[in-house]
This record gives sequence, structure tokens and C-alpha cells, in this order.
Amino acid sequence: MNDQEGFAISVEEAEIGYQEGGVPIGAALVSSHGKLLGRGHNMRVQKGSAIHHGETAALENSGRLPASAYKNATMFTTLSPCDMCTGACILYGISRVVIGENGTFLGGEAYLKQRGIEVVVLGDKKCQDLMGKFISEKPEVWNEDIGEEVRVHSKEAKA
Amino acid sequence: MNDQEGFAISVEEAEIGYQEGGVPIGAALVSSHGKLLGRGHNMRVQKGSAIHHGETAALENSGRLPASAYKNATMFTTLSPCDMCTGACILYGISRVVIGENGTFLGGEAYLKQRGIEVVVLGDKKCQDLMGKFISEKPEVWNEDIGEEVRVHSKEAKA
Repeated sequence: MNDQEGFAISVEEAEIGYQEGGVPIGAALVSSHGKLLGRGHNMRVQKGSAIHHGETAALENSGRLPASAYKNATMFTTLSPCDMCTGACILYGISRVVIGENGTFLGGEAYLKQRGIEVVVLGDKKCQDLMGKFISEKPEVWNEDIGEEVRVHSKEAKA
Repeated sequence: MNDQEGFAISVEEAEIGYQEGGVPIGAALVSSHGKLLGRGHNMRVQKGSAIHHGETAALENSGRLPASAYKNATMFTTLSPCDMCTGACILYGISRVVIGENGTFLGGEAYLKQRGIEVVVLGDKKCQDLMGKFISEKPEVWNEDIGEEVRVHSKEAKA
């Protein structure tokens, strides 16, 4: 598959996540030969998981693979990768990370580049709109997902 | 529990992993109040998992927690954390990582420090011996776990 198709799968995964009531971040891992190795989405809500983010879920669903399988592979993800997912891409020697958007959250892009990984940011409005919708609906789940303290913005707190 | 008890649990987890035929790396996550939040070990072999390493398994087994639960928490691990586990500790704002040994493998210790996390290396012989034993028995599984190419050292290759 080409880049457009790989990215489309990550978006599809994010949408499945949203429909399940979860954090709508999806990913797809595609080999250098254009073969889909795995796809997945954030499972914090669905599995009560602290480690199944979009990218790690795609890696998990790719199964056990030798290092050679990841060589020149591309990770497509709808959102800029958090520190854990950044590290997961580095661990497996993934060569390129294609990111839907980084307006909602800016993850480890600089560190990926520093470690020799190509980073492409698409600035996709659909991804950003979906995240914006989710965060406005469930801000506490989003904060938990990125390890941040909940910020209270209620009228009572200001009164 | 104190540091000695927390570390002992990580070693116990590594030993369980070895008995199961898996990569013998264990971890335990302990809160600032000395409460065990979660414990776990590498599940590459047992679950065919690419993301359940010692530290990520301990995080996963700790379940969904708010950011405040990780504040001033300590991750005990038998081996220097790989890039993924390094990133996972950073994501959740864990304050201290206590490492059994880094002679077998040196992971993201410098990056942990750079991101403000305290790193303690115990230089534990028991941990190093267990890893050495495993690597000599199953070198290909170990290489797969750290995303490295298999190196051929057979007599045939040299002949």
C-alpha cells in the first residue's frame, strides 16, 4: 500500500476508537515493501490499559517480529506520538513516522529526529477535529492518557 | 514497602519470567507512600507481545491511574530500561528508576536523567547472572526483544 492508504488505516482506527468510547488515536505499521504489519488504536478506556496507545497497539498487533521486519518501515499515526510511543518506534528501529496532526498535542518529534527517524506531519484537519471533539467531551480521560493532572475549570471553582 | 522490598519484587518477577521460558526482566511500580501499584515481567514469549516488557507490564498491571498516582513513584526494574520503557516512565512522570544492572544492556539512562528522573543503578550480580544465562540459552529471543539483528556466530559461518 502507498502512504495515503497507510494513513487512511490509522484514521479508520482512530474512528473505531471513538465509536467504542475510547481515546480516538489510531496507527498503522507498514513495511518497506508496503505490507501492512499491524494496525491498532488506543485502548485505555476499552481495556483499562496504560500502555495500549495507537502506536504501541499497532506494534502489539503486528506480533513478534525479527528486527529486519521493521527496517525502513513507516508508522502512521493520527497524533504526534507521546514519549512512550516515541521510544517504542526508536526501540524497533522504525525509519519513518507519519503524523496526522500535532496541534492537539506535540509529542517526541524532536527526539525522533535526533535519533535519526524521519518525521512527516500532515496537518490533517479531520484528525484534529476528532481529537478536539473527544477532549471537549472527556477531558479527564485525555489528561489521564498523557499523564497530566486534571485541571479544574468549573464555574464553581471560579466562584 | 521500602526500596529493598520493591527491588526484591522486580527480581521475583524476572525469575517467574525465566521459569515461564520468557525473557527474565521484571519490574515493580511503587508509589511515594510505599504502596505497590503494580508488578510484571516481560511477556514477549508468553503472550507473543512486542510491548509487554518488564516496566510496561508493571504499568499495565497497575491499571488506569490518574497522573497524581505516579507522582514521586519509583519504578524498580532488573535491567536498564529500553527506549520504549524509558519513554513510558517519562510519559507518566515517574520520579525515580532503580535498576538492577546495566552491564548486560545499557538503555535510556542518560535520557531519563536529561528529563529530570533520578536513576539508581544497583549493579546486582543475581540480575546479571540470570540475564547472562538466558542470553546464552536463547540469543535470538533476546535480539528480537531489543530490536537487533541476529548475529551469526556459528562454527559453520566461520568455516
